Amino acid sequence: MKGARVKVANAVVEGWSRPRRRRQELIDAAAVIFSDKGYDASSIQEIAEALGILKGSVYYYIDSKQDLLFEIITERQDHTDALVKRLRRADLDPLGKLRAFITAHVEDVMRDPVKSAVMCRDFEALAGERLEVATKARDRRNRFLRQQIVDGQRDGTVCPDVDPNLALRAVTGMVSWAWQWSAGGRRGSALVGDAVSDMVLAGITCDPRHHRSGHRALIGALPA
Amino acid sequence: MKGARVKVANAVVEGWSRPRRRRQELIDAAAVIFSDKGYDASSIQEIAEALGILKGSVYYYIDSKQDLLFEIITERQDHTDALVKRLRRADLDPLGKLRAFITAHVEDVMRDPVKSAVMCRDFEALAGERLEVATKARDRRNRFLRQQIVDGQRDGTVCPDVDPNLALRAVTGMVSWAWQWSAGGRRGSALVGDAVSDMVLAGITCDPRHHRSGHRALIGALPA
Repeated sequence: MKGARVKVANAVVEGWSRPRRRRQELIDAAAVIFSDKGYDASSIQEIAEALGILKGSVYYYIDSKQDLLFEIITERQDHTDALVKRLRRADLDPLGKLRAFITAHVEDVMRDPVKSAVMCRDFEALAGERLEVATKARDRRNRFLRQQIVDGQRDGTVCPDVDPNLALRAVTGMVSWAWQWSAGGRRGSALVGDAVSDMVLAGITCDPRHHRSGHRALIGALPA
Repeated sequence: MKGARVKVANAVVEGWSRPRRRRQELIDAAAVIFSDKGYDASSIQEIAEALGILKGSVYYYIDSKQDLLFEIITERQDHTDALVKRLRRADLDPLGKLRAFITAHVEDVMRDPVKSAVMCRDFEALAGERLEVATKARDRRNRFLRQQIVDGQRDGTVCPDVDPNLALRAVTGMVSWAWQWSAGGRRGSALVGDAVSDMVLAGITCDPRHHRSGHRALIGALPA
């Protein structure tokens, strides 16, 4: 792949000014190269070559490789932020918000598997203020999800045995990796989103009338 | 971290010959550096420096950087293979095998978060025959897990609505990422393993007496 002319994800919008389009093309091309080789092993030189421009021209649009990584991650996080904002206002109970988030987020991740892969694997390569900003965005998403789990426990729909922090990690781990599922092809993203939602919601809920402490731990438990 | 003397995970066994110990030290040091910078961005030079030896000496023990990556991944996969082999023979029903696998695997992954991270992020950096061997090992694990889900549907414990392929991906995504959870500290690996097992098993099972097609999809569903 080194220096190859790569097919860039098309995030460029019609009607944008030439510099803005060029900047977005850079971000898209960088995502392809980062996802292929990892952030640390990728160079501005390769990104320039992929677009057929000079390395020096790249610096007309961005300041550093960190800039490109930050833009890729911000683009992904903006989608998630918008979804969370919409769901906070939505007239849904906690389980409804969880299902709506998982379904929409899985679809969104699978729609841009390249940038989602970079976000998932190279998040920690961000540094300084950029890392702080991205971490805050991730925390906003996590707070929202954790809140739905806790609220679900309050309204009696989420099993009281569930540890909200562990459930949060399991859910985010599962949805963040949905970009890998695209590689498996065949499955529509809506189908995957629904299957993950079904599994998560069935996995954390219980009927309060039948709740017994530790009952979920009895499923498939070793004979005593 | 560049060229820093790193603390290596201790996989060296007492009583080993000096070359064997040195080889293992190399593998352990490579894991730390790969997990820190990614495989592509890491060099044999840095690994040598981390151990305070000459680059040339490294090639006395291994042939290439690919060798090191392959050894790291094989070490992890050997653990999983042994677990699967043990469970195939175990006198447990499908759900019991699933729970036993998830619990033990999460503990195993969290016991060596460094190599697990490399395995998770740099698997695709393997090439040729090494990639084939590692892919076969991963397929063995996946076939075992998928079989338990299918067998569970046959014996009526796993919900007939579950898509075994999607459930498999959800489960492997969740457990493969358990190495990240170590970073969160505080939680014991047994606690995490149990929480993930509870969530997965509650997530895919249903009581056949109350099964209605699509019933799991009703949890948190949008009002019609």
